[in-house]
Amino acid sequence: MFIEVVNPNTTWSMTATMGPPSIESHYDEALAVPGILTEIEKGERDSVDGYVIACFGDPGLDAARELAGGPVVGIAEAAMRAAAVLGRGFSVVTTLARTTGRAWDLAHRYGMRDACRGVHACDLPVLALDSDPDARRIVTEACLDALSENGSDTVVLGCAGMADLCAHISAEIGVPVVDGVAAATLTVPSLFTMGLATGKRGEFATPPPKRYAGLLDGFTTGG
Amino acid sequence: MFIEVVNPNTTWSMTATMGPPSIESHYDEALAVPGILTEIEKGERDSVDGYVIACFGDPGLDAARELAGGPVVGIAEAAMRAAAVLGRGFSVVTTLARTTGRAWDLAHRYGMRDACRGVHACDLPVLALDSDPDARRIVTEACLDALSENGSDTVVLGCAGMADLCAHISAEIGVPVVDGVAAATLTVPSLFTMGLATGKRGEFATPPPKRYAGLLDGFTTGG
Amino acid sequence: MFIEVVNPNTTWSMTATMGPPSIESHYDEALAVPGILTEIEKGERDSVDGYVIACFGDPGLDAARELAGGPVVGIAEAAMRAAAVLGRGFSVVTTLARTTGRAWDLAHRYGMRDACRGVHACDLPVLALDSDPDARRIVTEACLDALSENGSDTVVLGCAGMADLCAHISAEIGVPVVDGVAAATLTVPSLFTMGLATGKRGEFATPPPKRYAGLLDGFTTGG
Amino acid sequence: MFIEVVNPNTTWSMTATMGPPSIESHYDEALAVPGILTEIEKGERDSVDGYVIACFGDPGLDAARELAGGPVVGIAEAAMRAAAVLGRGFSVVTTLARTTGRAWDLAHRYGMRDACRGVHACDLPVLALDSDPDARRIVTEACLDALSENGSDTVVLGCAGMADLCAHISAEIGVPVVDGVAAATLTVPSLFTMGLATGKRGEFATPPPKRYAGLLDGFTTGG
Amino acid sequence: MFIEVVNPNTTWSMTATMGPPSIESHYDEALAVPGILTEIEKGERDSVDGYVIACFGDPGLDAARELAGGPVVGIAEAAMRAAAVLGRGFSVVTTLARTTGRAWDLAHRYGMRDACRGVHACDLPVLALDSDPDARRIVTEACLDALSENGSDTVVLGCAGMADLCAHISAEIGVPVVDGVAAATLTVPSLFTMGLATGKRGEFATPPPKRYAGLLDGFTTGG
Amino acid sequence: MFIEVVNPNTTWSMTATMGPPSIESHYDEALAVPGILTEIEKGERDSVDGYVIACFGDPGLDAARELAGGPVVGIAEAAMRAAAVLGRGFSVVTTLARTTGRAWDLAHRYGMRDACRGVHACDLPVLALDSDPDARRIVTEACLDALSENGSDTVVLGCAGMADLCAHISAEIGVPVVDGVAAATLTVPSLFTMGLATGKRGEFATPPPKRYAGLLDGFTTGG
Repeated sequence: MFIEVVNPNTTWSMTATMGPPSIESHYDEALAVPGILTEIEKGERDSVDGYVIACFGDPGLDAARELAGGPVVGIAEAAMRAAAVLGRGFSVVTTLARTTGRAWDLAHRYGMRDACRGVHACDLPVLALDSDPDARRIVTEACLDALSENGSDTVVLGCAGMADLCAHISAEIGVPVVDGVAAATLTVPSLFTMGLATGKRGEFATPPPKRYAGLLDGFTTGG
Repeated sequence: MFIEVVNPNTTWSMTATMGPPSIESHYDEALAVPGILTEIEKGERDSVDGYVIACFGDPGLDAARELAGGPVVGIAEAAMRAAAVLGRGFSVVTTLARTTGRAWDLAHRYGMRDACRGVHACDLPVLALDSDPDARRIVTEACLDALSENGSDTVVLGCAGMADLCAHISAEIGVPVVDGVAAATLTVPSLFTMGLATGKRGEFATPPPKRYAGLLDGFTTGG
Repeated sequence: MFIEVVNPNTTWSMTATMGPPSIESHYDEALAVPGILTEIEKGERDSVDGYVIACFGDPGLDAARELAGGPVVGIAEAAMRAAAVLGRGFSVVTTLARTTGRAWDLAHRYGMRDACRGVHACDLPVLALDSDPDARRIVTEACLDALSENGSDTVVLGCAGMADLCAHISAEIGVPVVDGVAAATLTVPSLFTMGLATGKRGEFATPPPKRYAGLLDGFTTGG
Repeated sequence: MFIEVVNPNTTWSMTATMGPPSIESHYDEALAVPGILTEIEKGERDSVDGYVIACFGDPGLDAARELAGGPVVGIAEAAMRAAAVLGRGFSVVTTLARTTGRAWDLAHRYGMRDACRGVHACDLPVLALDSDPDARRIVTEACLDALSENGSDTVVLGCAGMADLCAHISAEIGVPVVDGVAAATLTVPSLFTMGLATGKRGEFATPPPKRYAGLLDGFTTGG
Repeated sequence: MFIEVVNPNTTWSMTATMGPPSIESHYDEALAVPGILTEIEKGERDSVDGYVIACFGDPGLDAARELAGGPVVGIAEAAMRAAAVLGRGFSVVTTLARTTGRAWDLAHRYGMRDACRGVHACDLPVLALDSDPDARRIVTEACLDALSENGSDTVVLGCAGMADLCAHISAEIGVPVVDGVAAATLTVPSLFTMGLATGKRGEFATPPPKRYAGLLDGFTTGG
Repeated sequence: MFIEVVNPNTTWSMTATMGPPSIESHYDEALAVPGILTEIEKGERDSVDGYVIACFGDPGLDAARELAGGPVVGIAEAAMRAAAVLGRGFSVVTTLARTTGRAWDLAHRYGMRDACRGVHACDLPVLALDSDPDARRIVTEACLDALSENGSDTVVLGCAGMADLCAHISAEIGVPVVDGVAAATLTVPSLFTMGLATGKRGEFATPPPKRYAGLLDGFTTGG
């Protein structure tokens, strides 16, 4: 079983060579998608069995499901679905305030409008999660504030870059803390084990072959 | 890691010794719950790490989450959440028509009101899944009818007793078919691996000790 | 016309001899259900015309509707439906914080997600409503806080044990206060007068006869 | 206890002398409202304890609640709330197809979007319910069609003019049939018995006195 | 192209001669409707191409759509739809607190339950918008409070009488401020340009001719 | 006033030189976005006052709103909002069945879950709208089928390539037919006239400058 974790920014990624250094706007997210799809097309040629999209905006998820034969799971989706079985409500703690809208979009899409009790920004840019020596403290405090304001049962970390903080924060705040990278990385093999993949009889069938122009000159599908 | 699958009926179960022979009404489901909770209390004494409730009505799920220290997952919940990452919509195929209401209740509870495109009865009682020689054909046809009527991407099997039919039906109908027993049995270890369990800071804290009267004389909690 | 009020705890009840002394968790509620259903089966043999389930979690309501020939009404349902005709929004004031989740579940189920503006705990255990000399003051203050926070038109008392406080609180806070026991006890005869009872053509038909094992050895239906 | 049934059309009414002969459009409904409000203002001077608005569109309900000191209940609201405690879903059978939109509006407003499984027109104008010798058969058949199409537990009659057909239809189709006139006429006294009336601390406080011009020259409030 | 702006109160209106001096209750709104409909019937005889209903409660909108051959747009509807394309969420700032319920009703009706982040009263009666020298400051402050509390992208002015304040407030608070009178007055000609008007094949067909009694003696339709 | 219509496919467009020849999958849509954003960045340098995104999937709308100082409107959004003021419900008629999911996504996002009564594919690829001599007949028939199945008041054309068919279809089927290109092209100047543009205080503020790698080497923002 070969599962690929597609990291759509160019800072932490070993794989993606196309996209923004970090994703913290709709614009960044839109520009990360061609790189993600390139990786998945390459993965299909390499017989990858399933994919994780490792950015909390779950960028390109629908298009990736069209391309891939195996399952594709986004980390926001996996994190929210995991949190949903751990209690009645969760709080999301994310980076910049401008990303909270996208998190709410996804909560609605995944049927979590009621389960998601709040989306809270800690006001750190994504790259500061690595570079700011106070990052761990700041994110932990945002989690505590969120719990107290929302009365949630659990916390969801709203950025792939927070994965390393998960165990520490959980120990500090005393409630389950869900890291979507871990959740998605465990969900995809489970689906594979059950022989499950994206349904291909309609909306998510492989797109017909076309030739794309301009910057996207190299893009073709279906052949 | 020790995961217990609690089978709340007395026909297929090795464990539960209390409850109805099959669960196909709200009444059956209500009477299955004390047996499920007894199993979980026993499991807690035996240091079980997590539980699957193996009836598609997910009976007693909230109460089980109060009792258990580890994660508890129902098979309807696990099946619907798995199906939700495989496409836009799924159809549920269940046993008797009178159980479709409960499936809709759960779809609403789990945020699947839009993802669940239809709940279809094949009009076989639960025990006939084993005893009726036409069961496999009848369930397969109900799946095909559901797909055609709902335009779904996948099918969810709406009864633990259909688990053995899953591979066959999937091969016959050519779309992913989700068995909740498998889905839940893979979800619980994933949660355990991540160190995740029910959040215990509020609604799902262990209930305070009390003495229960009458038939439930043996029941106590919290001590 | 013979209406039975089924009080599912063993403290205040003249009838139920099976169940917990008070209901303030999902676990308590689950264990109260077999006693409720026993009462309803007995009521059916005694030609009872309709039933009130006198616990604010409305435990066992669907199963009770399967068993009973006449109407069955829960006190949360009756209280919320009464409050809904008295204004745009109501606040629920309940006992322990851990019970607020169940009240929200019911608000969703009864279509009151928008009408229910808040569920507020007064942090008194159920039995303290009788024994704590400050109970009346504490509940009244919780009602005032709820009104001020939610901008509601009315208050719903979220526990059968608060029924005796209803008139006092209403006088104190100057807004309509709904006691579900009264509301349900008036709803059932109204339905009976109209010749209305649970629809029996599908989900709520009498369950087929089965033999239940273990603690539930005495349970049979349909015969 | 003095309950007034306000019948907003001029055909069947003993009281309202202002309005359309029957209500089967938004326009009719809008023009029925001043007559309803006149009746309620008169009722207030006569110390009426509560009101039923006897048109299935529940016209003027919010304004009536502002004027009246006691409870005001519409027949659509009362019928839908009664049907909701009798099963999971109901079908509404109404007169002309053009009135189905209003019935859906009310179903949404009353939190019955899921409970209401369908609104079906029998394509009879309101006045034909009295004059057409086939009316009873036509409405009964529309009820049967609705049940079969929606899988509902009960039927709600969508016009005050169908009240006389209720017992006959229920006997014919074998499921509970809810007449809103009866339901509302029983709901108002129940509320009065509990000492409940519209909450007056905000939106539904008595409107401030004003002088209305033109046709409405006689209208004043609050004085 | 001839677009009529129907101003349903008698204070600012050149046209309507029937109705309340200002609209700040459900009662006022109900009594404004016959005057609005009279104007539209007159407009139809004068070949008006489309209508704006210039009261934020959008009174009589459905009935007006039945009467008019051309498009009819309410100012709340137009304002909310404009605000919805300018960001994720808007706040409504209205006059008296008792009108907030109606604004929420409309937000639900227009599919803006999520986009509408809050409805805030500035506690000025409608006529004080003209007469109170502090009105501009009070409304501006209410807008700032709303933005800060709701995290909205824009503000919607919740009363036709605030139209003159729009440019000033927008300059003061630095976010887009939507005046529904302007929005509707631009929407109707756009629809006319596209040849679009209310669909007339069902619910909004011209009502059949009837004779209305009492105060409404002059009302007839369809002829 | 200078409004730019961004046509995101390379077949009909004079402007976009980057993207797929037609957009009929999530993949096509994802790959159209960088070209759209390039156009908008160029437009900003050229002082464009507002933008229409002329593809019914409204691709890149959120990112475009971040980049543009003026309003940005998608054609699905504009069409649905126009249809919503013309009656209670509309049907969308689109090209290939695989695009119906995206149309539903947008209907949910724009608050049109109830107003949108159905999304119907005519099973023509986008480019066949121009090349297939039967295209007009096929789309017209799909509109008639949709109306009859959904009971809608109006039809929304679900592809920019259907714009030329709008007048013909409307004449043929006798109900209002909404073309999103026209609707959006009239909405943007209306917003500009009111001085309204995307709110920039939060989620839609101009993205911070970054350097994008790989194929997107030329992309920078904010500088």
